[in-house]
Amino acid sequence: MSGANLVNAVNRRMALRAYPDGMPRPEDFEVLEGPIPDIGEGEVLGRAVYLTVDPYIRVHISPSMSVGYAPTTPLGAAIPGEAVLQVVRSRHPGFAEGDYVAGFGGWQDYCALPGDSLRKVDVGLAPLSAHLGSLGMPGLTAYAGMTQLAEAKAGQTVFVSAALGGVGAVAGQLARIQGCRVVGVSSSAEKCAWAVKELGYDACLDRTSADFADQVAAVCPDGIDVNFENAGGDVFWAAFNNMKAYGRVIVCGLISGYNNDAPPPGPDLTPHLLRYIALKRVVMKGLMVADFWHLRPQFLEEVGGMIRDGRFRSKEYVVEGIENAGNALIDMLEGRNFGKTVVRIADDPA
Amino acid sequence: MSGANLVNAVNRRMALRAYPDGMPRPEDFEVLEGPIPDIGEGEVLGRAVYLTVDPYIRVHISPSMSVGYAPTTPLGAAIPGEAVLQVVRSRHPGFAEGDYVAGFGGWQDYCALPGDSLRKVDVGLAPLSAHLGSLGMPGLTAYAGMTQLAEAKAGQTVFVSAALGGVGAVAGQLARIQGCRVVGVSSSAEKCAWAVKELGYDACLDRTSADFADQVAAVCPDGIDVNFENAGGDVFWAAFNNMKAYGRVIVCGLISGYNNDAPPPGPDLTPHLLRYIALKRVVMKGLMVADFWHLRPQFLEEVGGMIRDGRFRSKEYVVEGIENAGNALIDMLEGRNFGKTVVRIADDPA
Repeated sequence: MSGANLVNAVNRRMALRAYPDGMPRPEDFEVLEGPIPDIGEGEVLGRAVYLTVDPYIRVHISPSMSVGYAPTTPLGAAIPGEAVLQVVRSRHPGFAEGDYVAGFGGWQDYCALPGDSLRKVDVGLAPLSAHLGSLGMPGLTAYAGMTQLAEAKAGQTVFVSAALGGVGAVAGQLARIQGCRVVGVSSSAEKCAWAVKELGYDACLDRTSADFADQVAAVCPDGIDVNFENAGGDVFWAAFNNMKAYGRVIVCGLISGYNNDAPPPGPDLTPHLLRYIALKRVVMKGLMVADFWHLRPQFLEEVGGMIRDGRFRSKEYVVEGIENAGNALIDMLEGRNFGKTVVRIADDPA
Repeated sequence: MSGANLVNAVNRRMALRAYPDGMPRPEDFEVLEGPIPDIGEGEVLGRAVYLTVDPYIRVHISPSMSVGYAPTTPLGAAIPGEAVLQVVRSRHPGFAEGDYVAGFGGWQDYCALPGDSLRKVDVGLAPLSAHLGSLGMPGLTAYAGMTQLAEAKAGQTVFVSAALGGVGAVAGQLARIQGCRVVGVSSSAEKCAWAVKELGYDACLDRTSADFADQVAAVCPDGIDVNFENAGGDVFWAAFNNMKAYGRVIVCGLISGYNNDAPPPGPDLTPHLLRYIALKRVVMKGLMVADFWHLRPQFLEEVGGMIRDGRFRSKEYVVEGIENAGNALIDMLEGRNFGKTVVRIADDPA
């Protein structure tokens, strides 16, 4: 193995020490060390530049939420997630040493991945971190939701929770560029102001305000045509209770509930939900990005083009060092991060 | 006014004495008498032959559930609902004395209605009562749901709650005729056996069985493609927990909750519902027949043709006498009636 790019002699990984009970705590995580992996034919050894911190990772570290797309991470193993990697060694004809790629490397310095599972990233287009956000899986998720499911027309009102997040910031900007009126939700007045100024939301509401639900009704006097749901809980209800007839709810993420293994106390609002689905002919659709990998080329071309021509803003919240990845996840779940969260563990050449 | 067909000198109406608190009681209803109404230009005086007893009537008699399509019925007024009527007097060029029509006459002997709101009924095709069921609003509801929303393909599993009811019996039979596997739900073993034998359900499950939810899972081992939801509550959940990926839930009726003004106790299952909508990409769609009046001609032609050629069974549960309409509603809400319920208050010539 060529050692030129092997900055560390060992492979550090951020692993689970214990499964979190509710909100994860710093002591649920630990950095472990292991050997740098070998690669087989067709594989690539990547050194991580950025690791992603996304809400779905909370689902991966919960035994009770284990499902097909997100099996529970074993204690001691690297926590899974997308990463931007630099190729250190390649046994795949499509990749050469020094290439930048994105793939499911997980929270670790080095990973061996099948070359066919990787995509090259465009180093000049935006900071490399964008390939975990606006140009990565969250961006594709938002793109698929807005182009394939939302049926949003110019002039309609689109409501986006977690408005600065990896998915939300893309959904909101795509809706704006489609000519929609876009109302976002975030977790502080400062973030909301930034979303309006930098991302072009028509309005953004602070979900921690005491009168948040009233604000939603006031800002959406004619109702909501599309709710791009990333939050769940009270934010979901504030939007749902203002849905316009024939409105669409894109159920994408439910970050408010990811720490809850058991259902919350009553009353049970399901009958209320069902009744209003019937009365208002609201359509609810689930969104999983795995259904839309085939859209990636057109997504990258369209959103990449919007970044190039300045209509679209891509910005990540960068945390330094793999040892802080667990805390970055906690901060994201608490709503403390200012936008799509990534962890930098090597220099970004862009 | 011609008195030839005026069997009663007065107009009896079934009215509310008091708004029901939970399940209606017989004493919540009373028969009142009033004058036979006059008609103006363009109107028709109809004498009721059959009155409908449908779940939505429970919504009309609840002040707390008042919504646009179902404003609360004033105490003392005739309870609203479709009726099959014989024309007694007409000031509309489209209708002559003796014609049979259907329209929103409410629970009373005589009503004055705009001729333009009425439709003539085909006396030879089926008992007149069918025009309140399979060939009436419930039938059109089922037809719209199965043809416009369900996206059911031959070989798929369609689940129908309230399988013998006005909507369910039509939805189930249309699904069967489309080549689907149809699983119904009713409230007794006897009704279920009848649904299989006479309506052609592939299976029908008794929701009062202790192991009902297990039976649903056992009878739908590959999951449910379409849930045509008429019930809500436990029946809804038994179906929802067996939905196939990309399945469709048509939220049409929620009879199990119509007696509840307040939401039921917890836990709150909404987060569970939202999570599975996302995970399974289940689509939930509300169905209101008011969106589909334009389908009536093709609906009558298609379902009428199926009745004529013997593929489709139309049968109503007939209660005699307007004085029993309130009890018929209670029995329907309790699941005691054997199929779509109507009240006969004059002879059916068919």
